Amino acid sequence: MDLNINLASFSSSEKNISENEIYDVLIIGGGPAALNAVLYTARKKLNVAVITDDIGGQIATSSSIENWIGDVDISSSELVNRFYAHIQKFDVPIKKNTKVSSIIHEDTVKKVVCTDGKTYQAKAIIVATGKSPRPLGVPGELEFVGKGVAYCTTCDGPVFVNKKVVVVGGGNSGVEAAIDMLSYASEVVIVQNLSELTADPVLMDKVLNDNRVSVVYDSVCVRIEGTNSVERLIVKSTKTDKEETINTDGIFVEIGLIPASNFVPDMIKNKMGEIEINVDCSTKIAGIFAAGDVTTVPFKQVVIAAGEGAKAALAVYNYVITL
Amino acid sequence: MDLNINLASFSSSEKNISENEIYDVLIIGGGPAALNAVLYTARKKLNVAVITDDIGGQIATSSSIENWIGDVDISSSELVNRFYAHIQKFDVPIKKNTKVSSIIHEDTVKKVVCTDGKTYQAKAIIVATGKSPRPLGVPGELEFVGKGVAYCTTCDGPVFVNKKVVVVGGGNSGVEAAIDMLSYASEVVIVQNLSELTADPVLMDKVLNDNRVSVVYDSVCVRIEGTNSVERLIVKSTKTDKEETINTDGIFVEIGLIPASNFVPDMIKNKMGEIEINVDCSTKIAGIFAAGDVTTVPFKQVVIAAGEGAKAALAVYNYVITL
Repeated sequence: MDLNINLASFSSSEKNISENEIYDVLIIGGGPAALNAVLYTARKKLNVAVITDDIGGQIATSSSIENWIGDVDISSSELVNRFYAHIQKFDVPIKKNTKVSSIIHEDTVKKVVCTDGKTYQAKAIIVATGKSPRPLGVPGELEFVGKGVAYCTTCDGPVFVNKKVVVVGGGNSGVEAAIDMLSYASEVVIVQNLSELTADPVLMDKVLNDNRVSVVYDSVCVRIEGTNSVERLIVKSTKTDKEETINTDGIFVEIGLIPASNFVPDMIKNKMGEIEINVDCSTKIAGIFAAGDVTTVPFKQVVIAAGEGAKAALAVYNYVITL
Repeated sequence: MDLNINLASFSSSEKNISENEIYDVLIIGGGPAALNAVLYTARKKLNVAVITDDIGGQIATSSSIENWIGDVDISSSELVNRFYAHIQKFDVPIKKNTKVSSIIHEDTVKKVVCTDGKTYQAKAIIVATGKSPRPLGVPGELEFVGKGVAYCTTCDGPVFVNKKVVVVGGGNSGVEAAIDMLSYASEVVIVQNLSELTADPVLMDKVLNDNRVSVVYDSVCVRIEGTNSVERLIVKSTKTDKEETINTDGIFVEIGLIPASNFVPDMIKNKMGEIEINVDCSTKIAGIFAAGDVTTVPFKQVVIAAGEGAKAALAVYNYVITL
C-alpha cells in the first residue's frame, strides 16, 4: 500500500547521520511539518538530524498547489524542491528511504529504532510523519495495486491516457484527483458514498461542469475484478443494496488518510492513531513532540502543517535548553 | 504610538465593502493570519470582506524574512506583495486604513463597528489584528516619537545614516533591529535588561562579531532627554541601581508586543489581552474566531500565523454552512 514517490533527485551532499551521536533533536518525517521543523531547529543552532521515508510527504500526491499563500499556482514538485533547498542551507544529516519501527522513550535520551535495525539517539523527537492513503479494504484491491489500483494521481495519472478511470471518494482529495485525471483520462467516474460531493465549491465547479465526468452517488465499493489488470469495479447502492458494475481501466482510491504513527507509543495517540498534542506540539511524554497531519491538529493543509512544524521546533528549543 | 507603515501602493481595484450586506465572514486585520484567512475563505466561496488598518501587519516591521520556508531570503515588502497578489485573485472587498472600535456579538449576525462610525455585518468574524510594539513607558518617550524614538527599523532606519542609535531589547526583535541598523548607523548600542542576549544564536552571531555593536547588559531605561530631538538615553543598572547616560541620536524600542485587541469582548481575552482560542481558532463566543499573534497561540512567526489563519477560515466555513 506504500507510495514510492520519487519526486526529484535531491542532492545528497548532506552529512551522514551517526548512531554514536546524541542529537538535540531527531525529526521523523519529510513533509512540510518536518521540513519546517528542520528549518526552525537549525536556525536555533540545535544539533538536528532527520529520518524519513520520503521528501515532500503528501504534497507529492497533489499535482499543483493553489493555496500556499504567496504562490498563486505552484507545482507540488517545485514547492517541495524550494522547501528542501531552504533547509539544505543548513548542514543537517538526513537519512532517507528509512522507516521507523519504534521509539524507546523511558530515559531522557530517546532512542529511535529504524526498520533497517539502526538506532539513533536524541534529547527530543519531533514526529511529523503525516498520513497515508486509507485503503478501500475490498477484495481485489491489494491484488491490483500497480495494475490499475492507485492512490496518487500525480504519480500514476499518466498511465491512464485516453482511458476510463474511477475515482473513489467525493471529498476534496477525490474531486482533486478527478480534476487531475481530466488531463489524462477520456472519462472519469466519481464514486461517492453520500448523495452529494463534499469538496470545496471551487473544486466541485470544475468537475460538475465537465461532461467527461459523471458521479455515482450513494454507492460503496464491493470488489474489484479483472484478469491481468483492473477491468471492473462493482459498487452497491447504500439506498437499494443493488449492485452495479462499472467497467474501468483504473481505480484511484481517495477516501481519506490514516496517520503514519505505528511506531509511536500508544499512550500519546487517540483511537484513530493521531498523536494527541498540546498547543505547543508537546505530548504526554516529555521530550516527544509531534507536528502536522500525524497529530490531532484540525484541518490538513500544507501551510497548517508548516506552522505546526515551526511550533514544535520552537517548543523543542525551549525544552532542550533547560535539560 | 501607531506605526503608519506604507508598505507598497496596493492596487485599489477591489469591490467596495457594504454596510447593507450580511457577509458570511468579516476578517479584521491585514497580516499573514488575516490574508491567509481571506485566501482560504474565498476558496471556500464564502462571501467575505476585510477591514484592516494596514496590509502586512508585523511583517512590515522586518526588513527581510529568512524563515518563510521555500524562500531562503525575501524582503518583507516582497513577501507581503506576494501574499496580497494571491488574495487579489479573488474579488474580496477590503476596507483599508480603518480601525475597529467594537464588536456587537449578541445575535447570530455580528456587527463590527469601526472608528469612522460605520458598521458592517457578518455571520462570523475572524479577528487577526496581530500585535503592536510595547512602549517603554518612560518620560520623554511619547514626546520624542518621530524625533528619534522609533519602533520599526524598516520604516525609520534610513533616517539614521552614519548616526549612533540605541536598540532597547536583546531578544529576537531587538537583535534583528540591531542587525538592520548596521546598514545605516555608524554605531549600535543594545540595551538589555538581562545579563545575556536572548535571540536566536544565528542572529546573535551577527551582532556579537561586529565591532560597531556594543551591549549594555542588566540595564533598564529611565528617561529620554533632548532638546528638539533625542540626545540622551538614561539607563539604570538592575544590579547597582547606578544611572548611566548613553548619548544617542535615535532609540529603537524592541521590548515586545501587545495584542491589538482593545475592541474585542473581554470575555474571550486573557489578562494580557490575547484572545483565548480553541484548537480550531474558535472562541467562547459562537461566530467569533481569532487567528495569529492576537491570540494565545504560542510563538509568533509568519508561518504559524498563516497556518492559524487557514485553520480559522476552515472552522468558519464549517460554522457558517450549518447556520
